[in-house]
Amino acid sequence: MARSDPIGAFCDYTDATLEGASAGPLVGLTFAAKDLLDVVGHVTGGGNPDWLATHAPAEETAWTVQALVDAGATMVGKTYCDEISRGVFGENRHYGTPINVRAPDRVPGGSSSGSAAAVAGELVDFALGTDTGGSVRIPASFCGLYGIRPTHGGVSMNGVLPQAPSYDTVGWFARDAEMLARVGEVLLQGEIAPTRPKRMVIAEDAFAVADPDVAAALRPIAQGLAELVGEHDSRPICPTDLADWRGHQVVLQRREAWRTFADWIDRVNPRFGFDVAELFASGARTDQDEHRRAEREKPEIIAIIDNVLADGTVICLPTTPCVAPLREQPRSIARPVLMNILSLTCIAGLAGVPQISLPLVEVGGVPVGLSLIGARGADEMLIGFARVAADAVGSTTGDVRKGAS
Amino acid sequence: MARSDPIGAFCDYTDATLEGASAGPLVGLTFAAKDLLDVVGHVTGGGNPDWLATHAPAEETAWTVQALVDAGATMVGKTYCDEISRGVFGENRHYGTPINVRAPDRVPGGSSSGSAAAVAGELVDFALGTDTGGSVRIPASFCGLYGIRPTHGGVSMNGVLPQAPSYDTVGWFARDAEMLARVGEVLLQGEIAPTRPKRMVIAEDAFAVADPDVAAALRPIAQGLAELVGEHDSRPICPTDLADWRGHQVVLQRREAWRTFADWIDRVNPRFGFDVAELFASGARTDQDEHRRAEREKPEIIAIIDNVLADGTVICLPTTPCVAPLREQPRSIARPVLMNILSLTCIAGLAGVPQISLPLVEVGGVPVGLSLIGARGADEMLIGFARVAADAVGSTTGDVRKGAS
Repeated sequence: MARSDPIGAFCDYTDATLEGASAGPLVGLTFAAKDLLDVVGHVTGGGNPDWLATHAPAEETAWTVQALVDAGATMVGKTYCDEISRGVFGENRHYGTPINVRAPDRVPGGSSSGSAAAVAGELVDFALGTDTGGSVRIPASFCGLYGIRPTHGGVSMNGVLPQAPSYDTVGWFARDAEMLARVGEVLLQGEIAPTRPKRMVIAEDAFAVADPDVAAALRPIAQGLAELVGEHDSRPICPTDLADWRGHQVVLQRREAWRTFADWIDRVNPRFGFDVAELFASGARTDQDEHRRAEREKPEIIAIIDNVLADGTVICLPTTPCVAPLREQPRSIARPVLMNILSLTCIAGLAGVPQISLPLVEVGGVPVGLSLIGARGADEMLIGFARVAADAVGSTTGDVRKGAS
Repeated sequence: MARSDPIGAFCDYTDATLEGASAGPLVGLTFAAKDLLDVVGHVTGGGNPDWLATHAPAEETAWTVQALVDAGATMVGKTYCDEISRGVFGENRHYGTPINVRAPDRVPGGSSSGSAAAVAGELVDFALGTDTGGSVRIPASFCGLYGIRPTHGGVSMNGVLPQAPSYDTVGWFARDAEMLARVGEVLLQGEIAPTRPKRMVIAEDAFAVADPDVAAALRPIAQGLAELVGEHDSRPICPTDLADWRGHQVVLQRREAWRTFADWIDRVNPRFGFDVAELFASGARTDQDEHRRAEREKPEIIAIIDNVLADGTVICLPTTPCVAPLREQPRSIARPVLMNILSLTCIAGLAGVPQISLPLVEVGGVPVGLSLIGARGADEMLIGFARVAADAVGSTTGDVRKGAS
């Protein structure tokens, strides 16, 4: 299938495509899939050339990909991502960095970088990504897209290269809430009508993590959404510090990711960008006490989050505390930014709850996402509310997305 | 210059060559230089494609290379090495592994792998390498070559990519002791006559580290050399355990290597094989107490070694405790082998004293080196004794090297 790719989103080492079924709710639509998702007969590359070189073609197509194709959508290609889905900026040291059309001098975000870039660049109607520690939410924020990390376990991971299975999810991107919902109806296997949550909590501590200009831009939109909801209030959600939750999430995910790949790394001694190698090395030498402490605290953190989300409540927070960083920053600049981002993405990650990022705001002409987190299983409600929110914000503020170009 | 390279020793990304002067002691000889040594007008690649891509051509030729060319030898090419000289097996994840013609199913050793392989494969008469933690001695042992790590600071490091400057040296390989001496006369700038040390200590603790079959094969040769020397005895040289000395050397070298490359790694986020990245990551997070302890103990270790080497004494030990490992072993197999090797190479490394490896023995048809360590400045004496030793062993045991093929 001929494919134009001016932004370097599509993997040039595979021609995996799948023609959509002739009937179904997604007929006529095109999509891309992060190259962590299997397509039968093609090697899944995982964003690393040594993974690609040391694995056989997939024997089955990922459940999510097949479901979309069966619903009539055509998969036009696989997309680049951070290596082995380890990274949040989308700067792959082997394959380059897809262009973020909404901010071409900035990173697209990752790890589902190519999928986000392809949707933002209008090369496809929607795209699949994966989100373990933020890999759909972050590029959605940076590229000005709708993106969802579903409830952990709510969408089949069948045929997806795992990273840290306790946190791995498959999510998707779209340029508007309607498209996010159409895809969601297929992947969540249910109807998604416009709806509103019962309550909203604006997470004060999450806003406090954000850069001041980002917080200032997001607050009025958050307030606007809150007013669409019956009850709402503003308060911190973490009794200590979100950096503590992030610390536990980082330890748990790194350790689990190391276990997923340790045998392969032992056998192959693969090439990684230094930052990715360092993550694995760090996972390999996890301090046992630190790991035990994180394991012990995780259920308490989940209980706290569940408690906030009870009775149809949603948490509203910045998806990322910043707009997309400039491309090719030194690691010493990028690392504290990464840590700050994870202070926000760790919340849904730890609790296994769904989060949706809404592209309703720009700061200095560059998009940044506002997020809603819901209880486990509230995926359809979040998407349904995104439809309401998009209409409401669109009618009161004008379409800020279009204002960008 | 046309060059045949059936063994993958020469860098295919550079055509750096230098025609030898028309007169001088090395006229008619060819040599290769590890691609850590500068040749004016060519980028020094350091065994890593991202180093190569992010550096400018050298403005001067390395002192050692120039001295050899001025003495009449022609440099026919640059050779592959372990990345940034971090590694002892010669298996470069980017450029492949040069063939060890003396044991084609085994590694050539590193980091000066291509230089050793080129000499062993008779593509050149001799070659330059570098040795920080064993990078000349180890491939000399594995490829059945004469190889010398000179006194630290005794041969100019001008124009050489540093790794850990407190330990970095430039050394060289040859197939026979005469050639090692001819090159030595140029690089050490003095005459090298056959000679004998006054005393020899056979390092019992170093032999105890070796595989039993390696120790058994080396002992009679060590004994034969001892008998060429006036006084000799067998005893341990380390009052505790060579693994302690290795531990200190590893901590000090890793930390220093990290400091050498930290800024570049920060800026470039280079791709490394995982094992190399892990070494750097480990250097970056060196435990301060451990580092201080190593720094404190180093002068004591040097004093112990100096004391053994006083009054013209040489230490005799296995160069490596094993023959070359098989190629492409998993890291879990290779790592303990590496650690065991460093228990022997750390001795001269810590003390900054010269060590020469002699290819007088085979085990199961595969070479392994016997080493002599001398006091600082005893480089010529060691080479002079190598000439005597080669003749003596050759006359009593036959040429074991030729017995291999």
